Amino acid sequence: MIKVILLGFGNVNSSLFNALCRSKEVSIIQVFNRNYIKVISPYESIPFIDDISKITDADVYIIGIPDDAISSFSESLSFKNKLVVHTSGGAAMNVLSSKNRRGVFYPLQTFSKQREVDFINIPICIEAENSKDLELLQSLGKLISKNVVEISSEKRAKLHLAAVFVNNFVNHLYEIGSDILKDENLPFELLKPLIAETASKIESLSPEEAQTGPAKRNDKKTIEKHLHLLANSTHKKLYELFTEQLNQKYGKKL
Amino acid sequence: MIKVILLGFGNVNSSLFNALCRSKEVSIIQVFNRNYIKVISPYESIPFIDDISKITDADVYIIGIPDDAISSFSESLSFKNKLVVHTSGGAAMNVLSSKNRRGVFYPLQTFSKQREVDFINIPICIEAENSKDLELLQSLGKLISKNVVEISSEKRAKLHLAAVFVNNFVNHLYEIGSDILKDENLPFELLKPLIAETASKIESLSPEEAQTGPAKRNDKKTIEKHLHLLANSTHKKLYELFTEQLNQKYGKKL
Repeated sequence: MIKVILLGFGNVNSSLFNALCRSKEVSIIQVFNRNYIKVISPYESIPFIDDISKITDADVYIIGIPDDAISSFSESLSFKNKLVVHTSGGAAMNVLSSKNRRGVFYPLQTFSKQREVDFINIPICIEAENSKDLELLQSLGKLISKNVVEISSEKRAKLHLAAVFVNNFVNHLYEIGSDILKDENLPFELLKPLIAETASKIESLSPEEAQTGPAKRNDKKTIEKHLHLLANSTHKKLYELFTEQLNQKYGKKL
Repeated sequence: MIKVILLGFGNVNSSLFNALCRSKEVSIIQVFNRNYIKVISPYESIPFIDDISKITDADVYIIGIPDDAISSFSESLSFKNKLVVHTSGGAAMNVLSSKNRRGVFYPLQTFSKQREVDFINIPICIEAENSKDLELLQSLGKLISKNVVEISSEKRAKLHLAAVFVNNFVNHLYEIGSDILKDENLPFELLKPLIAETASKIESLSPEEAQTGPAKRNDKKTIEKHLHLLANSTHKKLYELFTEQLNQKYGKKL
């Protein structure tokens, strides 16, 4: 049985909470959260606390709070020599206070409170200062995911950067698509099968093999028409930059 | 029974071929293609021809060739007063020669020859000059998809523009993600669950509700760190433009 205390209850930790609660080999001892949140059954027996001095004993303490706050929060913990990990893609392991044994437990996924995700395929990127702690994080990760990987802070930073491109920026493109249709009173539903297939395609093809479209073909007539249709100047800027990059990449291969 | 002749055998028409062949209410009479392609059984009984003068009689002729070539190709057909449609998102209906009855049969999806897609959820956008032809396209569309919609050339151009954002540009972001990981010898597989969830999320949330990340939060420290990590100047330009746009959009709401 691995005893876990969650520190913070934002998008990541509340998703972890749901996943860890389902494992019979994990006991969530406490959830510390400054803003009291009532948790729905069947997990209402787990104590939620908002007093940092009442944090008790556990095998691992998982911090899920904004990157900027990790350092000072970990310093403010009253205990020492325990395994304290954060869940951030962007923060290095050593932002944590050195008064405890440090580690990282980063589930590489996008979490929203409105949507529950299945952890089984989510890569859990772990890091620790010593091999015993790494083993514990490995065991904990394996209880919820089949993909637990050891990754250094340096490589994790790059992974997080790549994640911003394929998640936040991709989602912004969905929003632009939705905006363009809204102007024409067309439902966003029309684009959903295309969005789903675009994502599914790279399960079996590389992004390079999957690429199609006017910019790849350097179909100047369509590109000009599109630029003419784009009333929004920020959308236009993105269109131009993508087209330039796709042209540079595929132009010579035609 | 609807008699169909396919003119051209690129990504769209070869996908349509596979879908239409499965319907018992469609008879594919011929496939015209300048480059002879051997088609695998069980459809090898359908004649493939490369002589334009040998095109025979059908209820609808479906042109699937590059946008630029549609006009002159449709003019070069020897028959008249037949229903001739193209499958392009970007070309207006009236690029087709007026010597035949004109229409559009545009399946809004990304097609690659290496990958077969299920048409059932694909929106088929139809347009025709007269109501009888529109009905026929509606019936044909319904044999392969549950979502057949009448859309004007003008609206279809916008739809195609939106499709470029959520498909071609999104795929380019996948490629950038892949490139960033390659530099670190990290497998692209790590990003696949995130890519899948990012696409799935907008089935139940709007892109605005689904948005997360440093640019939305205006997390300047992370943004600076990422810009520092980005060695590739074109990737950097995209990062800056997306961040600027996300900041403009969400900045005031924080």
